[in-house]
Amino acid sequence: MADPIVFHFDFSSTYGYIASHRIDAIAARHGREVLWKPFLLGATFKITGLPPLPTVPMKGEYSARDVLRTARFHGVPFRLPTVFPISSQAPARAFYWLSDRDPQAARQLAAALYSAYFVDDVNISNPSDTVAVAASLGHDAAAVAAALEDPAVKARLKDETEAAIARGVFGSPFFFVDDEPFWGGDRLDQLERWLETGGF
Amino acid sequence: MADPIVFHFDFSSTYGYIASHRIDAIAARHGREVLWKPFLLGATFKITGLPPLPTVPMKGEYSARDVLRTARFHGVPFRLPTVFPISSQAPARAFYWLSDRDPQAARQLAAALYSAYFVDDVNISNPSDTVAVAASLGHDAAAVAAALEDPAVKARLKDETEAAIARGVFGSPFFFVDDEPFWGGDRLDQLERWLETGGF
Repeated sequence: MADPIVFHFDFSSTYGYIASHRIDAIAARHGREVLWKPFLLGATFKITGLPPLPTVPMKGEYSARDVLRTARFHGVPFRLPTVFPISSQAPARAFYWLSDRDPQAARQLAAALYSAYFVDDVNISNPSDTVAVAASLGHDAAAVAAALEDPAVKARLKDETEAAIARGVFGSPFFFVDDEPFWGGDRLDQLERWLETGGF
Repeated sequence: MADPIVFHFDFSSTYGYIASHRIDAIAARHGREVLWKPFLLGATFKITGLPPLPTVPMKGEYSARDVLRTARFHGVPFRLPTVFPISSQAPARAFYWLSDRDPQAARQLAAALYSAYFVDDVNISNPSDTVAVAASLGHDAAAVAAALEDPAVKARLKDETEAAIARGVFGSPFFFVDDEPFWGGDRLDQLERWLETGGF
């Protein structure tokens, strides 16, 4: 079986959220799995020197409009959260706490966390809110709360973020098909043709 | 007749060049004209605070790969010029010298200048090279050379750049369908649906 498509995303990324609604279906059409890998986008800003998108004059304003239109274009439910952007350690740690033991449950948790933030306006940067989302899926609230403070889980997220950057990831969403990098949900058309053709 | 689609681009913009091969056909499918409007992208950097894309760590390297792949994806001939990026005053001034008198000839000149730079590796930032491209289309070389130094032509390009920025243009390519802004060739799918539906 071919290697999974790797999907790097930050839980505070609007375009990452929209892509999370699309990537599994694209992969499935071509017999691929998707490996979801949250990371901390803020760590890339130190390397690229770029500011967070919402803070850039003109481009930030355009983007606020564009993300709403892009969500409508793809039929993805979306509203801009009251607090945006957020730091995304809590949801990303909860994901990695679960992912080695149960990848499918971790993927479901990621979708639930994204939906809580970008549909229900729940500020998942709060550990208590991330715990509540996990508990709503049947996970043990005390265990999740402990995981968010577990040094091993913290180190795992740090390692995953560093590994993503070492591979060239500077934005969210960011995909790899084998060794080919694709940045942005607007490259999913090229990604799909790459899957169809084996490269072009 | 509906208003033309406005197409803002910089002659040094790789993604602007690729979009220049696509926008007229999209517009024609929906009974629209396209108004080509070169501007100086560098003027936007002072407002956004962003550096030129090729100079951004990680993102610049990705982009050099992405633009080659994007050109192949759309079947557009392309090679990265030896000197890149360039200042684009000369080709943009030649365009505006012609555009009021003969918009169709100006559009043909723009296509020829883009092709000279991104296919034939001619450095059109040199006035003599821009003049040679114009002369190859039958324009009077001495008249074009004089236009590149004409204060009125220089002022026209400055005014067009300021007007584009005032409307919200911060990148190349940038399009308007009526009052709806679309940044990037990767928004032409949304632009086309906008034309089909009148907005979504």
